[in-house]
Amino acid sequence: MTSPTTADDVYRTVMTVDPPTPRTPFDEASRQYLFGEVWNRPGLGIRDRRFVTLACVAAADAVTPIDQHVYAALRSGDLTIEQMNEVTLHFAVYCGWPKASALEQTVRKQWNRLHAERGQEAPAWPTLTVEDLGPADREERIRGGQEEFRTVNVIPAPPPDSPYFYAGILNFVFGHVWRRDGLSRRERRLVTIPCVGASDAVGPIFSHVGSALESGDVTYEEMQEIILHFSAYYGIAKGEALHEAARRWRAGQP
Amino acid sequence: MTSPTTADDVYRTVMTVDPPTPRTPFDEASRQYLFGEVWNRPGLGIRDRRFVTLACVAAADAVTPIDQHVYAALRSGDLTIEQMNEVTLHFAVYCGWPKASALEQTVRKQWNRLHAERGQEAPAWPTLTVEDLGPADREERIRGGQEEFRTVNVIPAPPPDSPYFYAGILNFVFGHVWRRDGLSRRERRLVTIPCVGASDAVGPIFSHVGSALESGDVTYEEMQEIILHFSAYYGIAKGEALHEAARRWRAGQP
Amino acid sequence: MTSPTTADDVYRTVMTVDPPTPRTPFDEASRQYLFGEVWNRPGLGIRDRRFVTLACVAAADAVTPIDQHVYAALRSGDLTIEQMNEVTLHFAVYCGWPKASALEQTVRKQWNRLHAERGQEAPAWPTLTVEDLGPADREERIRGGQEEFRTVNVIPAPPPDSPYFYAGILNFVFGHVWRRDGLSRRERRLVTIPCVGASDAVGPIFSHVGSALESGDVTYEEMQEIILHFSAYYGIAKGEALHEAARRWRAGQP
Repeated sequence: MTSPTTADDVYRTVMTVDPPTPRTPFDEASRQYLFGEVWNRPGLGIRDRRFVTLACVAAADAVTPIDQHVYAALRSGDLTIEQMNEVTLHFAVYCGWPKASALEQTVRKQWNRLHAERGQEAPAWPTLTVEDLGPADREERIRGGQEEFRTVNVIPAPPPDSPYFYAGILNFVFGHVWRRDGLSRRERRLVTIPCVGASDAVGPIFSHVGSALESGDVTYEEMQEIILHFSAYYGIAKGEALHEAARRWRAGQP
Repeated sequence: MTSPTTADDVYRTVMTVDPPTPRTPFDEASRQYLFGEVWNRPGLGIRDRRFVTLACVAAADAVTPIDQHVYAALRSGDLTIEQMNEVTLHFAVYCGWPKASALEQTVRKQWNRLHAERGQEAPAWPTLTVEDLGPADREERIRGGQEEFRTVNVIPAPPPDSPYFYAGILNFVFGHVWRRDGLSRRERRLVTIPCVGASDAVGPIFSHVGSALESGDVTYEEMQEIILHFSAYYGIAKGEALHEAARRWRAGQP
Repeated sequence: MTSPTTADDVYRTVMTVDPPTPRTPFDEASRQYLFGEVWNRPGLGIRDRRFVTLACVAAADAVTPIDQHVYAALRSGDLTIEQMNEVTLHFAVYCGWPKASALEQTVRKQWNRLHAERGQEAPAWPTLTVEDLGPADREERIRGGQEEFRTVNVIPAPPPDSPYFYAGILNFVFGHVWRRDGLSRRERRLVTIPCVGASDAVGPIFSHVGSALESGDVTYEEMQEIILHFSAYYGIAKGEALHEAARRWRAGQP
């Protein structure tokens, strides 16, 4: 077991505040296991673990943890407000707009809280313009979406024969969201993998775990850390499917 | 209690196949409760109930029920293949693309099965073109999105100051998806309400239940049927939040 | 850290098979944390933990874990097939019929596997009759439902003014399911609490955690074990809400 001091130190680094005194088995186990072990592991940095954690707590609709992790991600300086807002958009695509709505509101609230604590007024967010929306030309968007789909998924783009594939996947998800500035492709994978894990979607789980590895954006050892981290926050039961996807990818490797 | 005969007849009408013999409390209770009571209730037609059910089984990642309900919706003629494909796109937005992926594949599979059973070859789906994507002009999309947001939600559009609101909500969700042909606004609400119910997103639950009622697209009595139907398919635990949203809307009525 | 030997022994007892060799951080952590610590804790027996676990893995749509835990629950003799089938029905009510459908199929599969391993033919399940469905008299069902609601929730029954309350809650959930033989009220609580936890339904979380404690069916110390167990299987992120509900119940105690 990690020493309580270590767990508390890791808590302080990750959450950016002093750890409360544990009063129940849940408190004690989450301090020891989450902070003494999981966040403390080598193989995946704290900033990378923040993307995984943010996706997990947002997918879980966990009100207090969302507050705490958004605050900590911003206060630590690990994520800029622009990066945090990109996480919200990317998360919305993978876990649905309704769940993302709580994340969006939390980012506004914690951004204001952070500035209030510093005795500052939070700067207004910029009014976005059509420049933020990518190319206006629809053919160009679809071509871009096909190319991005291939790069991200390491398989050919789907046929443009259903609204889901055409207006959705090619035009918006890969034609726009994955091509936006603000997060790297590796960072978007760190958000996507827990989202597909939370969604129990077998096809996307195999495809996103496999392509993250295949592309080299995430090493096999890093993937194992992502899976363990996800399992702590979103449960061992769902972690199993991600773990199996990684195992099969490796088994298929020459 | 409905007679077993009635429950079996309703099963046959809804599922378009003969009911299997119940052998467990689960079998028996689901036949009696789901078919003898829920689907058999007046106040919401079978076709309307199909939208609610499709969203529920897809949100639940329930492989066999997704197969059965997609098949039944198509075989009954209640939904055309174009409408079914619109349901998939709309569902993708509200429950995330990974969950929708299974629905998309199921629609293809059941479409082929249905034709195979009839000794026919399933016609290829049409190759979509940019005309399917709505206006190319980005200003026009955003303006359309703001207007649609107001109409659907019966509140002002959000500020264009985060990627979630601007590139997501205004540009795509309301600037494109809700404005597509193929499903009426009422039909899109029948998909959206179970999706937000499944997502546990408090803000969207209150907003979509309230605005469906406020707009007159769904009557209070119909909403109660939607909630009961949802609770049967997605569980009483989550049904509570939709029910509370309807109660509060009514309490706020003059 | 618990010794690897202990974790392996607990695994053997719980899962009824020899533990595989851990090959990844996920394997290692789930062996050590789940079996070396969680299942190994005093304060809640292994049989009780099975109800919590079955609800968690079924809610998570975790295919392999559902297989393994259904098999282990039956093979250990901790649950009879009749009790297992009651768990499926109870789970269906709280997490919805579509998710329960996978559990139902798994029970059949593992029941057959268990008999096949013993060189036996699995006995056919009985064909259920209307006797299994409780009283036909509808007034009697509602009266029974109101009484059961009060006993389980330790608050007055809701008004019969919506289909959700009347046809759903009073007629079916409390008028039938909770009153069925086959599982005790305490056992039904062990299934219900993880279900409402998985559903993120704030009202039902407070009501079921609070009433389980209030009724004396579950002690505060047992509830802490249920929450820790749930958090391991369904994630710390969602565990937080159950934990908060228990904390508030205690704070409100005289």
